[in-house]
Amino acid sequence: MEKFITIGERLSTTAPAVNKAFLERDPEPILKRAKQQLDAGATYLDVNIGPAEGYGPDLMKWAVELLQSNFDNVPLALDTANKEAIEAGISVYNSAKGTPIVNSADAAGRIEYVDLAAANDAIVIALCNGEGIAKDNDERMMYCQTLLERGMALGMDPSDLWFDPLFLVIKGMQDKQMDVLQFIKDVSDMGLNTTGGLSNNSNGMPKHIRPIMDSAMVAMAMMNGFTSAIVNPNDLRLMETIKSCDIIRNASLYADSYLEL
Amino acid sequence: MEKFITIGERLSTTAPAVNKAFLERDPEPILKRAKQQLDAGATYLDVNIGPAEGYGPDLMKWAVELLQSNFDNVPLALDTANKEAIEAGISVYNSAKGTPIVNSADAAGRIEYVDLAAANDAIVIALCNGEGIAKDNDERMMYCQTLLERGMALGMDPSDLWFDPLFLVIKGMQDKQMDVLQFIKDVSDMGLNTTGGLSNNSNGMPKHIRPIMDSAMVAMAMMNGFTSAIVNPNDLRLMETIKSCDIIRNASLYADSYLEL
Repeated sequence: MEKFITIGERLSTTAPAVNKAFLERDPEPILKRAKQQLDAGATYLDVNIGPAEGYGPDLMKWAVELLQSNFDNVPLALDTANKEAIEAGISVYNSAKGTPIVNSADAAGRIEYVDLAAANDAIVIALCNGEGIAKDNDERMMYCQTLLERGMALGMDPSDLWFDPLFLVIKGMQDKQMDVLQFIKDVSDMGLNTTGGLSNNSNGMPKHIRPIMDSAMVAMAMMNGFTSAIVNPNDLRLMETIKSCDIIRNASLYADSYLEL
Repeated sequence: MEKFITIGERLSTTAPAVNKAFLERDPEPILKRAKQQLDAGATYLDVNIGPAEGYGPDLMKWAVELLQSNFDNVPLALDTANKEAIEAGISVYNSAKGTPIVNSADAAGRIEYVDLAAANDAIVIALCNGEGIAKDNDERMMYCQTLLERGMALGMDPSDLWFDPLFLVIKGMQDKQMDVLQFIKDVSDMGLNTTGGLSNNSNGMPKHIRPIMDSAMVAMAMMNGFTSAIVNPNDLRLMETIKSCDIIRNASLYADSYLEL
């Protein structure tokens, strides 16, 4: 069993400080947040520049070069609806620091992100969605197959498609949570990798509850074979839970100091 | 899906203060710990009087009457290797306050505890062990079947046998943890109830780690259908995790105040 992979989500235009730093090409706030996430144990850093129309390619290049020149061995997930920006980011990306992740394809309008990943020896996050949210696991699995076939036809290794079930908000879709978890199990049982924006489940909950609910969710998902997640690695409770589940899964060796490793 | 059932473990002779209170028939420490556990959300209270040779029947009667006369609607788990003490406890037990639990039978020397439960319309915790610890899930399942058949032959409802896989200590048996969790799933998939002394997994770990590891373990077990556990209900992190998993399993309805309920 491989150790669980965390993709740090805090370099995102949804955070006003990050958005400002991206627009002004100000390295300090970016590097600070990058370091915080890496110190907390993030495996990957997600670089979410938003739609970034027009200036996207330039910005993504800047961000990739900034992060890769300041941190050794830190792989990145390039996250934007601007396809040219991902291509530009990969064009300057040093893969000696780890395989880049293209974030993300779906089985509808964004299926070409699979092609992009295939053409650049990248990993792709493959959202098991079509035009809307899948209504059940049969539909999720149909999208999973579509994405998998697309990638394999282009020579991708199946392990380089990381299938995202799309976590659903509990406040409003409480009765769908076990379906999402079952889908993770179904995909895992096929030997495939999974990922997802975990905290979507706790959207709208009081702030003090979210780390508690996210931790419960990630443990249940890890029981079902979940292999990675897009998370806030500075959520201490969540990271403690992930490390503990990795001990239980025998993916990392227990030592009394395991929480500090 | 039924809500997860917690059996509070803090009324046990392994705690020196409780042992003293039992020996001196001193109600105050007992009632105090009972209230603490109930306030924290325990469903059942375990009453572990130890081997209690000789004086066991008198002590168990005293404890049952004390607890049932002070707390309404609190069912008890009667926990001792002294079979006469369990019989004595049940003889004064008011089942209007909930079905008593006999803790516990196994598939070897303590199989007659199943008979005792059957004769008294009680639930029995059925440890899936023989003379020693089961070496794998085939052996656990064999013991499970032995216990199930014994109970059913005596007219018990299968749901009144709560199968305990025996949680194993991670420090020493790290590579067996997923077997235990898989066994919980196998038994759950048969439609049967499960329980166990959860914290055994974190035995020997530093004190600050145990609630973290126990919480990870209970969430993974609940993913696999685990229906109850013998726990310290005053472990806040653990109880928060159990309540959160019950939300995810759709066993209790989400409200922003769910952690306080």
